[in-house]
Amino acid sequence: MEQKFKKIGLIGKHGDDRVITALNDLSAYLLAHDKEVYLDKITAPLVPELSHEILERADLGKFVDLAIVIGGDGTLLNAARSLVSHDVPLLGINLGRLGFLTDVSPTDLHDKLDKIFAGEYTEEPRGLLHATIERHGEIISKSCAFNDVVVHKWNGARMLEYETFIDGSFINTTRSDGLIVSTPTGSTGYALSGGGPILHPSLHAIVLVPICPHTMTYRPIVVYADSKIKIVVKDCNQAEAQVTCDGQINLGLQAEDSIHITREKHLIRLIHPKSYDYYEMLRAKLHWGKRL
Amino acid sequence: MEQKFKKIGLIGKHGDDRVITALNDLSAYLLAHDKEVYLDKITAPLVPELSHEILERADLGKFVDLAIVIGGDGTLLNAARSLVSHDVPLLGINLGRLGFLTDVSPTDLHDKLDKIFAGEYTEEPRGLLHATIERHGEIISKSCAFNDVVVHKWNGARMLEYETFIDGSFINTTRSDGLIVSTPTGSTGYALSGGGPILHPSLHAIVLVPICPHTMTYRPIVVYADSKIKIVVKDCNQAEAQVTCDGQINLGLQAEDSIHITREKHLIRLIHPKSYDYYEMLRAKLHWGKRL
Amino acid sequence: MEQKFKKIGLIGKHGDDRVITALNDLSAYLLAHDKEVYLDKITAPLVPELSHEILERADLGKFVDLAIVIGGDGTLLNAARSLVSHDVPLLGINLGRLGFLTDVSPTDLHDKLDKIFAGEYTEEPRGLLHATIERHGEIISKSCAFNDVVVHKWNGARMLEYETFIDGSFINTTRSDGLIVSTPTGSTGYALSGGGPILHPSLHAIVLVPICPHTMTYRPIVVYADSKIKIVVKDCNQAEAQVTCDGQINLGLQAEDSIHITREKHLIRLIHPKSYDYYEMLRAKLHWGKRL
Amino acid sequence: MEQKFKKIGLIGKHGDDRVITALNDLSAYLLAHDKEVYLDKITAPLVPELSHEILERADLGKFVDLAIVIGGDGTLLNAARSLVSHDVPLLGINLGRLGFLTDVSPTDLHDKLDKIFAGEYTEEPRGLLHATIERHGEIISKSCAFNDVVVHKWNGARMLEYETFIDGSFINTTRSDGLIVSTPTGSTGYALSGGGPILHPSLHAIVLVPICPHTMTYRPIVVYADSKIKIVVKDCNQAEAQVTCDGQINLGLQAEDSIHITREKHLIRLIHPKSYDYYEMLRAKLHWGKRL
Repeated sequence: MEQKFKKIGLIGKHGDDRVITALNDLSAYLLAHDKEVYLDKITAPLVPELSHEILERADLGKFVDLAIVIGGDGTLLNAARSLVSHDVPLLGINLGRLGFLTDVSPTDLHDKLDKIFAGEYTEEPRGLLHATIERHGEIISKSCAFNDVVVHKWNGARMLEYETFIDGSFINTTRSDGLIVSTPTGSTGYALSGGGPILHPSLHAIVLVPICPHTMTYRPIVVYADSKIKIVVKDCNQAEAQVTCDGQINLGLQAEDSIHITREKHLIRLIHPKSYDYYEMLRAKLHWGKRL
Repeated sequence: MEQKFKKIGLIGKHGDDRVITALNDLSAYLLAHDKEVYLDKITAPLVPELSHEILERADLGKFVDLAIVIGGDGTLLNAARSLVSHDVPLLGINLGRLGFLTDVSPTDLHDKLDKIFAGEYTEEPRGLLHATIERHGEIISKSCAFNDVVVHKWNGARMLEYETFIDGSFINTTRSDGLIVSTPTGSTGYALSGGGPILHPSLHAIVLVPICPHTMTYRPIVVYADSKIKIVVKDCNQAEAQVTCDGQINLGLQAEDSIHITREKHLIRLIHPKSYDYYEMLRAKLHWGKRL
Repeated sequence: MEQKFKKIGLIGKHGDDRVITALNDLSAYLLAHDKEVYLDKITAPLVPELSHEILERADLGKFVDLAIVIGGDGTLLNAARSLVSHDVPLLGINLGRLGFLTDVSPTDLHDKLDKIFAGEYTEEPRGLLHATIERHGEIISKSCAFNDVVVHKWNGARMLEYETFIDGSFINTTRSDGLIVSTPTGSTGYALSGGGPILHPSLHAIVLVPICPHTMTYRPIVVYADSKIKIVVKDCNQAEAQVTCDGQINLGLQAEDSIHITREKHLIRLIHPKSYDYYEMLRAKLHWGKRL
Repeated sequence: MEQKFKKIGLIGKHGDDRVITALNDLSAYLLAHDKEVYLDKITAPLVPELSHEILERADLGKFVDLAIVIGGDGTLLNAARSLVSHDVPLLGINLGRLGFLTDVSPTDLHDKLDKIFAGEYTEEPRGLLHATIERHGEIISKSCAFNDVVVHKWNGARMLEYETFIDGSFINTTRSDGLIVSTPTGSTGYALSGGGPILHPSLHAIVLVPICPHTMTYRPIVVYADSKIKIVVKDCNQAEAQVTCDGQINLGLQAEDSIHITREKHLIRLIHPKSYDYYEMLRAKLHWGKRL
């Protein structure tokens, strides 16, 4: 029988020794299971003792059948953005503390991998956002986001003032600390802290969550994922507004800049063990009540 | 040219004299425009001076090409539930105060109707919910809801305790004053008062909003509209829990009753003038900021 | 040296066998420490094996130097209301799960009591509310509340409509599921579920928390504890509104009834072990972050 | 009879021509009413046509019997901070749009001043906060605030991590966008946008409102106004945290800096016309329901 996941790429978080242990362990496990192992170029210096072929992130995306990401949700967000155009399945391994995205824990890793390689897994498509900034009619920067695109005040105490449009329709003019535009994946992150709802990952939707809006009736709005969102920053001093993607990529803004947010055309393919249950994970993370 | 809306049914709210004026005005306008006019049986006693044929609600639904509903959002909710299986388009006329659903005001009614009858309108499909209550394995009551199905404590001060399931997956056990399960249409109603998000009407989704939950991390959850929701009421005294549909239909509960909520298979067809803008209506109702 | 707490009254929750064990244990401990022990009349049937003198609640209040209450926060709320006019200190023992008010756990009870009887305790004054209902100019019922006085819809789905006044000043007309008027003690209870703030128990204040208000800008208001609050219920059908004190006492309402809420003139005297730390208790109950 | 307010200081907002009109009008009115008029040094350049004596802000505070502030709430916040140690009453005139603090509008200014000078006014004391920043055991900066002291992330997307202490007791460790520490005056400002309650101005209290806290159970806490609040910033990069007073004064932070917030020992004395009604102002600003 042909192996579905033959070539495996490894991506690890920097700055945590548990990742080194996990990479060594994974390497041995994968070799023992007759896999070809490749190391992400940024990850490789963590494990000089391993002699796997080293690939640039983009080449890794083109080449491997499965990328295993070891770290926290932040590591997986980063990997997802860099690999999204390559259609490679991602499996997230946490470092001992359950993540929203990294749901396989190191303690039962071998068992989970045995099953995944035996075909006992589910593949879950997850949408991303694509943000471009337009200044005087030209695109000056762009990025994609797995969790959220956030327009926020920066380096200043004054609220931002901005206009929001959805599919060309004017929504409102608001003053607030910013606006979170979040995928279902991001809805359990910053958007939740800002008062947004939880969106089930299968929902083809985007949520807009204003941060501390001056208008108390401006509440989170959930729209169809194919909506085209435009935010026009008004009356803001130089360097007092910024766009952030997943809290990791920063793009500076000036007054009258437009931020265009659309659905990224590629999807991320998250791999979960068959036992994965989204609500069980929510219950654990949010301390919800168990069955009586 | 064939008239699309030839047979018109009229439904009016009781208890407001402005409805009587509007019904008389509409009758004259419609006759002058060569329409056949039918009166809803419950509405007819309001206007004994009119001699149109009187139809039961169900017959009205079968017979007319368009039902015009005069009143507030409550009147339209009621009409929508009673007509949903008949596939008849609905046009909502308010009584001078903009409603979320009754967006045509009496002052420019003739002008708006001229355009609608000339084909300048949009038809918006809106989803409903269907709720059944199961006791000891039998269905004991059912109803549909345009805004929301609410399970709430009743006739008692104690919080309800209940388990929630979505598509067979256990979500959590909660104690709260109740749970609002709302359509996008209902998301600007009671669900909003309870802290829920606004769902755009085109979104194929349902939102669950717990009312004053004991668990502070239990936040509104938005799921796909085809989800099957089950709520099992635990530990509640006789008559201390009830299901309400659109705040208008009440169904009593006992401990261990299950409430099953699914998408109603028929859609409501709302007719709007071409000039209708959902976000303009939201801005007006919620006092949001206009364009600078 | 004179013993400060010589005569001890025991009050226990019904329906939990752990209370019986705790009462027997306490009885033995207290006798061994040369205390006079009295049983609350309602509690006595739980422990027929004990031969202490049995007193009506009011007599207990007059007679003992300290009332020990075994159960949960609900038991202590009940005891507090019934004893408030008697100026007797209260010590709350929980049943193994930390309460907001019952902060001594059975496991270290002897040690804690040793210290309390040695004078190592703090006494914390806590305010209560007093509610009276006025109909056609006459007082028709009254009660006091340790946590909260709640005016809420009852036996109906429709929101209540009511006017609120503070010290004679008109605040607003609202439609909502109800209004919670809470002491600092109650601010971590129902008021918190309704979106209210936490009030430190030393704060001489009352908070008004509207439940699911139709007006989204109606937010919790914190006022001085000596404020006189008046709520006038408008337009409500028979039996569709009710006042609840601590979720335990219910008083029916009619349209145009006024509810007057003032500070109860007596204070409750809560006894805590010296080691008691209000914020430590909050951290434990609310899962807040510990020190790094 | 001796005039209580004989020497009047004028302070005006820059950048709004209506202030120039109002200053000229006020000048004429005051001279006609036999008052001595003094111009704030920063305000004087706005009205070179007026020949009143010009005073530094501090001298104005020492010298005049009443300071009239023309502008918006921001202008009054600024004036209040600069004059707080001088015990001078303040009267706020808005520019045509009601403010929370500037409650006299230009249209009925003469009438209101007639009455105020005739003694028909109320004087309302309002508390301020005092913030000091301590680094390596030394005070490196300090300021006072009439609305709020806000510790927030700055020039970065990452949440702040900090520990909070009240009167020496540890409250919690939190990650959030920041923490608002607000007076009752500030409770209707930024703190309200952040989800805080409204505190009546007569309440001797402070409210802590975390901004988008990672811990969903961290809710606003209201404490006694004499509480000593300490916030210790952990793990923050250079320039990624800042303290802001009233959104107008900025103080930079480093990791391990402590912010100490206490009650400012002087009070502001706000002058209101006798007709002033705090709740009427709230109703107007927050669109609350009027009496039926």
